[in-house]
Order: sequence, then structure tokens, then C-alpha cells
Amino acid sequence: MILKRWLVGDPLKTAQAANERLSKTIALAVFSSNAISSVAYATEEILLVLILAGSAALAWSIPVSLAILFLVIVLTISYRQIIYEYPEGGGAYIVARSNLGDMPALIAAAALMIDYVLTVAVSVAAGVAAITSAVPSLYAHRATLGLTAILFIVVVNLRGVRESGKFFAIPTYSAIGALGLLVLIGTVQSLIGFVPAGLSESTPSIPAGVESLTLFLILRSFAAGCAAVTGMEVISNGVKAFRHPESKNAATTMIWMSGILASLFMGISWLAYHYGITAKEHETVVSQLARLTFGTGVVYYTIQVGTMLLLVLAANSAFAGFPHLSSILARDGFMPHQMATFGDRLVFSNGIIILGFFACLLLVLFRGDTHALIPLYAIGVFVSFTLSQAGMVRRWLIKKGHHWRKKLIVNGVGAVATGIATIIIASTKFMQGAWIVFLLVAVLIMMFRGIRSHYQAVAEQVALSRDARPPRPRRNLVLIPIGAVNKAVVRAVDYARSRGGEVRAVLIDVDKEETALVEIKWAQWGCGVPLVVLPSPYRSILRALLGYVEENLNKDPDCWITVVLPEILPARWWQNILHNQRALLLKASLLFKDRVILTDVPFHLTR
Amino acid sequence: MILKRWLVGDPLKTAQAANERLSKTIALAVFSSNAISSVAYATEEILLVLILAGSAALAWSIPVSLAILFLVIVLTISYRQIIYEYPEGGGAYIVARSNLGDMPALIAAAALMIDYVLTVAVSVAAGVAAITSAVPSLYAHRATLGLTAILFIVVVNLRGVRESGKFFAIPTYSAIGALGLLVLIGTVQSLIGFVPAGLSESTPSIPAGVESLTLFLILRSFAAGCAAVTGMEVISNGVKAFRHPESKNAATTMIWMSGILASLFMGISWLAYHYGITAKEHETVVSQLARLTFGTGVVYYTIQVGTMLLLVLAANSAFAGFPHLSSILARDGFMPHQMATFGDRLVFSNGIIILGFFACLLLVLFRGDTHALIPLYAIGVFVSFTLSQAGMVRRWLIKKGHHWRKKLIVNGVGAVATGIATIIIASTKFMQGAWIVFLLVAVLIMMFRGIRSHYQAVAEQVALSRDARPPRPRRNLVLIPIGAVNKAVVRAVDYARSRGGEVRAVLIDVDKEETALVEIKWAQWGCGVPLVVLPSPYRSILRALLGYVEENLNKDPDCWITVVLPEILPARWWQNILHNQRALLLKASLLFKDRVILTDVPFHLTR
Repeated sequence: MILKRWLVGDPLKTAQAANERLSKTIALAVFSSNAISSVAYATEEILLVLILAGSAALAWSIPVSLAILFLVIVLTISYRQIIYEYPEGGGAYIVARSNLGDMPALIAAAALMIDYVLTVAVSVAAGVAAITSAVPSLYAHRATLGLTAILFIVVVNLRGVRESGKFFAIPTYSAIGALGLLVLIGTVQSLIGFVPAGLSESTPSIPAGVESLTLFLILRSFAAGCAAVTGMEVISNGVKAFRHPESKNAATTMIWMSGILASLFMGISWLAYHYGITAKEHETVVSQLARLTFGTGVVYYTIQVGTMLLLVLAANSAFAGFPHLSSILARDGFMPHQMATFGDRLVFSNGIIILGFFACLLLVLFRGDTHALIPLYAIGVFVSFTLSQAGMVRRWLIKKGHHWRKKLIVNGVGAVATGIATIIIASTKFMQGAWIVFLLVAVLIMMFRGIRSHYQAVAEQVALSRDARPPRPRRNLVLIPIGAVNKAVVRAVDYARSRGGEVRAVLIDVDKEETALVEIKWAQWGCGVPLVVLPSPYRSILRALLGYVEENLNKDPDCWITVVLPEILPARWWQNILHNQRALLLKASLLFKDRVILTDVPFHLTR
Repeated sequence: MILKRWLVGDPLKTAQAANERLSKTIALAVFSSNAISSVAYATEEILLVLILAGSAALAWSIPVSLAILFLVIVLTISYRQIIYEYPEGGGAYIVARSNLGDMPALIAAAALMIDYVLTVAVSVAAGVAAITSAVPSLYAHRATLGLTAILFIVVVNLRGVRESGKFFAIPTYSAIGALGLLVLIGTVQSLIGFVPAGLSESTPSIPAGVESLTLFLILRSFAAGCAAVTGMEVISNGVKAFRHPESKNAATTMIWMSGILASLFMGISWLAYHYGITAKEHETVVSQLARLTFGTGVVYYTIQVGTMLLLVLAANSAFAGFPHLSSILARDGFMPHQMATFGDRLVFSNGIIILGFFACLLLVLFRGDTHALIPLYAIGVFVSFTLSQAGMVRRWLIKKGHHWRKKLIVNGVGAVATGIATIIIASTKFMQGAWIVFLLVAVLIMMFRGIRSHYQAVAEQVALSRDARPPRPRRNLVLIPIGAVNKAVVRAVDYARSRGGEVRAVLIDVDKEETALVEIKWAQWGCGVPLVVLPSPYRSILRALLGYVEENLNKDPDCWITVVLPEILPARWWQNILHNQRALLLKASLLFKDRVILTDVPFHLTR
């Protein structure tokens, strides 16, 4: 408990919840890192696919990047509409559920959940890659570094939303600044025709193509680059976390975020194309660009560390989204109820821990390699994009209202664009791992439905029928099984008779002498409670006791029987193997007797 | 439960216990296999040591065997006296405890316990060796065969004493018959000078010596051969299992057992010497003898299978001794109390399972190799021999009585002979593994004493002082924490008010609307029990509830508080993760509040 307090801080009152709201500046840091950080790997993933068709194909990176830029713009406008329409938070699940029904909503939820886990894994892996590009000797420790980073984020998140926000604002802005500087200086240099010193060395290393430049390959590079768009939905999920006026602030923040994302992504793609940079195994594209532009000095290291921090913060944003989505699902009965309860620090501790666990698992399974994880990534997000845009289209068609035709067209364009992107991503990545995501979506949906149908079955079983009456009072026979007369037994008797009713102590006669001794002691200590001595033909105390319980139940099937069990609780856990084996058996045997209720009266030993 | 019944049979009444007594014929099969079976490996172990000094040293196997024969005779006479003096069973622990005190008794008990485990492991390993000698292709599966054999014996023993006895009589006598035939025919052949066909082939394979023939080597071969004597104490432990007159029958059986053991052991040692047989890795000495005498035919296979069965039965005899010793120790408070209780089938199930487990462990650790286990073996038995003989010497000195001087001399000779053997065994085997046994003896003694001192501490803590009075009746406040009004809650209320006293339902107000709804429903279903609504500033139901409990405890520190918890029990175990997380936390928090008693009222779901 002390460790927990130290790690996650003190609990907060409900009244404090309003104060946990985020300013735009902090919110941009918390919510945008997911989207913006993808510039660290999106260009690289595009180049990695195109290079298969040789260096000439690299020119295609510009049109592919422009297509992705188009998606960013469409999504920004579409999502602003969602933010105003769902001020309580308009995640794909909520939008799909309120406009399209349960099944599309569950698909969106499952897809998003998987993508949250992937966001953590991919971002952390890419963040580690930023560091190992600068310090190659750390390359062998990728997985360890990744796991440490996740553990760190989990602890920070268990400490609560606002502290995390503050904690992350400075590094986020530093990283955006550093990357912005790189794009700015690099672009200016490229425009004035400045040729960096290191450029000539890297040119001859470009390999010849192994595939021909087909439409499929270009679409594949587009699909890989779509990783850049992931995270754009984060703000719409968290509108409630903004200060008043929530929707307006969120929408403004959305514009800022998209603007930063678009400039950095296009800038990096342009520079990479301009310098003819290709992806290398041990060094990221951003690292190569930074080295070319600034040399391996202070600025270079600042950019690498900043990129790493930004990616860690991207992972962090999933830690806000995942537990939030889980809690919404839990409230609708699709996830275990306990996921819906607030943790100590106004955050959803259970969700945080589960997300951390699965992200670690993924990181270990894919050995901390960004490129290996990418084929699984982005599909989930695009499925949810498409479903929420489609949901909005249906909403305008039904609800109509102010300027509904204009709004319909905006979300309609969004739905079509993201729908096409989804099909491209799914079809080009399917064999490389995307099938795993589809399988997991199906499994998750089955789980969601299974959980809900269980809760429904429970609700039906415990529901009180209108015409039923409250039960009439019944008899309650209290039995205290004893084997000796000692403080533990006297305590149990003291407890049992404090409530009146018919109380009897029960002794199983396994040894005549012992029984006689107990009877004498009982006369002094029994507090007037009658002692029933039962024969035990089978030498089994349990059997004799159960027989007596049965007998009394048969006499009056309507009565309750309370078994008050004096139990000695040792001071140390290992001493338990020296005690209570019989109590355990008794509990197990009585558990399924409908009218028998067991009460332990523990007697705590001190040594 | 059905599986258990099918495996171990129906329970028996106490009255049936007398019928579980064994006739001499059955008892010989049950108790003597341990001692007699050691002829399968004892000679081989002697030869394995002597061969280190070259083939000429093998002649020493005859005097070494004669020394062991002397031990057998001395022990037979000595143990007959113990059998008459301790008709209730005279194991080394009992004899040492009643004559020498606690510490020697615990040494004997620890030594015997370790040797029981070793008996199982060594016998099963040797039994498997008998089979792999005949079918060399099974050699690679030694460990699996051994584990299967132990599992088989465990199940048979859980079925009860008499059935095991019947089950084992036929194979024991077949095995004794087959080995007897081997010794008889072989000896006759050797006396008439018949030379078997296969003999010439094996002669040249005898290696030159690698050590010189020192006194130490001869003593080491004696120590190794002492494995032959193990198991001779088994009958004295089990006198009570014989039919009336118990001691007389047991003493007669003892003579028979020793006679058979002595003839087979000396016969095999003589034949091995006569034919110049040495130990081979993949074939036992007995197997080589049987092949030479009968060729690889039906008789040969009968001897090998018989030997194997006899060794399995030897392992079985430890399954009678170990739980018996454990239960005696448990009754004296040196082992957990539950070891003292009879199992369903009048046998001590717990001990059987523990022995099986450790024997399997040993078999796996030593990879099912008899020779690797032998250095650990026999020490424990000889320590206990010495202690029980010494105990008898002390007994005669104090008790005197009829012919006490003669009896004193018999046990005195026994004590001296076994004492010297113990010293020889311990000193020659110490570095090869015997130190493990000494270490384990020390650990076991610490465990025995730890357990007893714990039980004594418990007894002191629960003991009622003479001058104390029974407690006066107290108040009992019954609280029912509810979150909704449903069948489970109504059931808990029905139960709680069946005993009178002050009953209150407690609702934590986390949601105003929900609370209002519950209050309305309560008016109909509450059976007149008042509903207390508690605010929850920390949104933690647990915290609010604990606070209320504390508050009431502070008002009247002398009263009991009963928390009646309506608990929904799912129909399937995995559904538990969807329920009762809160109940679990509540239980954990209340466990250490001295005056708060928790009662679960389970509501069983059916689907």
C-alpha cells in the first residue's frame, strides 16, 4: 500500500474532477503527440516499400505523401464536425453506436482497441529506434529499452491525468520545435541549392530494384504511409477533458495539431526525396536527415532525443484513450463492470494496466522492431474512421438541422476517402499480418457479445418479478462445529449468541475420552448454548457434520442454517498449511447447499 | 469426485478396520518385498566397488557378503524382541522416543523418512533396470517408466491396505519362486561343475583395476552391499496389521523373511563370484546370471519380470511405512495435524501423496539411475537400526524383567553391529552423496521442531485461563451493503433478519438518480429493514463502507458488526472475473478488523 501511494500519489475527491480539465496548450501536448509523432516513421515506411522497385521509384514518395496530406485535411474538417456534435466525447464507438447500431459500433471498438495497443508498441519501438540511431551500441538492447519505456508510462499514467499532462508538455513542444527546425533549415537549404557535406557518401549505397514498379507497390507504399494519419481521432475522444467551451477549444486544438502534422510530414518526405535518402536497418530516415543537415552534434542529438520523447508521449496518449474506451464499453455491458469504475486517481487504472501488458507482449513477440509491427498498424484506425464518418452521414440524413447538406457532404467525402484508404490498406497488407487484426477483431467482438449476454442473463436471473412478495421471516438454526473448548471457540459462541435465535454447538465424537473432556469444559464455557454430540461411524468429521445439517434441513426445508466456524488464523502465511484444512473442506461442501450460510469467526494468532 | 471414487473405491466404516488385518501369507508379501527385493541390486553394488581394484579383488565379494549375512542374522533376532515388546508397532521412532528421548527419536524419524523416499526411488529404478536388461530398447525411457510405476503404486495405495495386499501376494511369491529357482539350479550346476555355454564370451571383458585393493575399498563395498539389509525393520513397524496373536505372527513372518533374504542374497553373490560376473551398464548382474543359467528364454523373462514386480512391491512397502510414521509424528505434534487423520480408505492419503511426489522428484533428479541413488541409501536405515537397538538396551537396563540379561545381550550385539556398520557406511559414502542425507536429516529435525513449537504457541494462545469468565452478551449490528435491489439482495435481507438484532442495509451514493431508484424499490422489497445512504466523496464504495463500519465500531467498541454480503456466484468459473471484484476487496479489508465478521450470502446463477 505504501509503495502504491508512493508510485501513484494520493486519491482525489470527486469535487476535484472539474479541476482536472486541460488547457489547450496542455491538451495539444497530451492529445497530439500520437498523430504528430508518426512523422518519425511514416516517410521511412513509404520509402521502404518504394525502394523495392529501385531508386527511381523513390520519386513516387511525393505523390504518395500528397495523397496522405489530402487524407489529413479531409479528416481534420470531418472530425471538427464530430467534435461539435459530440461534446461528451465522440469516439468511433459512440458515433457508430448512436447512428449505425451495435454491430458497427463493436467493430469500431474492437479495431480501436487493437490499434491502441499497436500505437503503444509501434511508438515505443520507433522511439527506441531514434535512440539506437544515435547510439548504435544500444541496438542489441532494443526490447529491454522498449519494455522499460512502457513500464515508465504505465506508472506515470497511474498517477493521474493532469500530472501526466504537465509532465509531457515541455518535451512535446521541444520535440515539435526540434523537428520543425530540421524541416525549416533543411527546406531553406534545399531551396537555395546548398549541398550537405555527408551527402555524396550515401549515394552509391542505393540498391537496384527487386520488384517492378506496379500500381500495387505504389498502393502498398500509400498503405504503409497511412500510419502518419493514426492518432488524428484522439482529440474527438477526449473533448470532455478540455476546459470550457470544450468543443470550441477541442476544434481549435485539432486545427493546430493537423497543421503541425501536415507540415512536418510533408517537410520530411520532401527532404528525404530531395537528398535521395533511403531507409537503413540501423538508422532511421529522420536521423539521417538530421545528420546531413546539422552534422552529428548537439542539434542532432536534440532532434533524436526529442523524437524519442514525442514517440513515448504518443504511446502515452493511447493510455488515455484505451481505458476511456474500455470504461464506455463497460458501462454498456460489453466489458467487465469493474473496468467502468474510477481508479484512485480519477483515471481508469484497470485499463492502463491491461494496455501496458498487451503492449509489452506485442513488443516482445515482434522483438521491438517497428517495421515488423507496421503491417498490423493503421487498419484498425481506418476502419474506425470509416465507421464514424459513415455514422455522421447517417446522422445528418436523419437529424438534418442547420446546414445539414454541407455537413453531409463533408462527412460523406470523409467516409468515401477513408473507406477507399481502408480497402487499400486491408488488401495490400492482408498477407503481411493484417489478417491477424481481422481475426482479433472477430475474437474481441465475440468477447464483447459474450460478456454482454452474460450480464443480461444475470440481470434476468436476479430480477424481481412484479407480482412476487418479499419473503416472510424464517427460522434460523445456528450450528457451531467445535473440536475442543478454547478461546477461538468461545469467541465464536460469543458472536453466535449475540444475535439470538436457536444456537447449538456440535461436537463429533471420534474419541470417547476427548468427548467427555469437552463436555465438562462446555459446562463452564458454553454460555448456556446446548452441545450436540454426534457419533461418527465413518471417522469423518465432515461427513457427520454434513449429515446433521442435512437432517435439520429435511426437518424444516424452509429454515436457514448458519454454520458459525471458529477459525484459527495464523500470524504467518506459511503456517496456514498447519491449520484449517478441515475448515476449507467444510466450506467447499456447504457452498452449494442453498439454505446453508457459513460464517467464519476468525481468531487471529499473534505469533 | 466420481473420478476419485472410481480410482480409490468406496469409504469404509471404522468397524470394518479390524477386518483389514493381514494373514501371515499376505503380510509376508506386503512387508518382506522391501527387504528381499534388495537382492536384485545388493550383490551388483558390492561388485561395482570391488572391480575398481581389478578382477582379482572380486573374490572379496564372498567375505563381504558373509559380513552382511551376519548383520541379517543379528537384526532378525534383535527385531523379534522389539516385535514382542512393542505389539502396537515398534518403529525406530517409537522405540527411541520411549527409551532415549525426543532428539534421538527425531533423528530416527528424519532418517527413516528420507530412507522411505529412497526406497521407492531405488527400488523403482532397479525394477526398471531389470526390464531394460531384458529389453535394451527401453533403456532410453527409464525415467518415464519409473514415474509411471510410482504413479501406479500411489493409486493402488490410495485404494487401501487389504486390496493392495491381495493385489501383491501373487507377484511377490512368483518373484521369490523365480529367483529361488535361479539360485537353486545355478548352485546345483556350479556344484556339479557344469559350465554354461555363454560363459567363455564374457570372460575377456573384465577390465584391469584402477585402484589398489585397500581396506577402505573393501569397507566401501561392504557399505554398498548394506543396501541388502534395508527393509528388515518394516515388519516391526506394522505389527498391528497382523491377525491375532499379532506379535507371534509378526515374529514368525520375520524369520521367514530373513531366511528368504539370506538364501537369495548369498546364492546370487556365490553365483556371481563363481561365474566371474561383473556389473555392466546396460545389464544387471541378476539378468546376466539368469541368461547364463537358463539362456534367453521363457524362464529368463519370468525372472526379469518377477524381479521387477518384486522391486515395485518393495517401493509399495514404503507407501505403508511412510504415511504410518507421518501419522505417528503428527499425533505427537511434529507434523501437520491433518497427516494424522485417516483418509477415506483407512489409509493415510496425505502421506501417500507426499511420498509419491518426493520419490518422483528424486527419480527425475538422478535420472532413474540406481547406482547414482545408492550412495544416499541405507544410511538412514542404519541410523534408525542403531537408535532402536540402543533404545532397547536402555529399556532392558531400566525395565529389567524376565530374562532381561539375555535380551540385553541380544540388543547390545545388535546395537554394536549396526553402530559399526553405520559408521562404515557414513564414512565411506560421505563424499559421494551421504552428506545430502545428513543435511536433510538436520533440515527435517528443524521442521519437526518448528511445527511442534508452532502448535504449542497456538495452544498457549487459545488456552482459556482458569480465572477468566465466559463473555457477557453483546450487541450485534448487521450491515447489508447493497448496490441495487434484486433477488440476491432480497435473499441476503431475508437471511439477515431471520435472526433478529439490528439490521441495516447500506447504499453508497455514487449516482443520485440510481440512488433514488434504489430507495423507491427498497420501500417495496426492504422487508422493513432501514436503508442507510452514505455519501462517497472519493467515489470509492469500499472506502465509504469501511468508514461507516469504523464509525459504528467507535460508537460501541464492544459490539459485533456483521457484514452480510449478497454475492452473485456465476454458473461457470471463468465468469468470476466478471463479478465480485468488489466483494473480494471488501473481504480482504475486513479480515483484520477484530470485531467485524463477514457473512457471504451466495446467490447461485444457473446459466
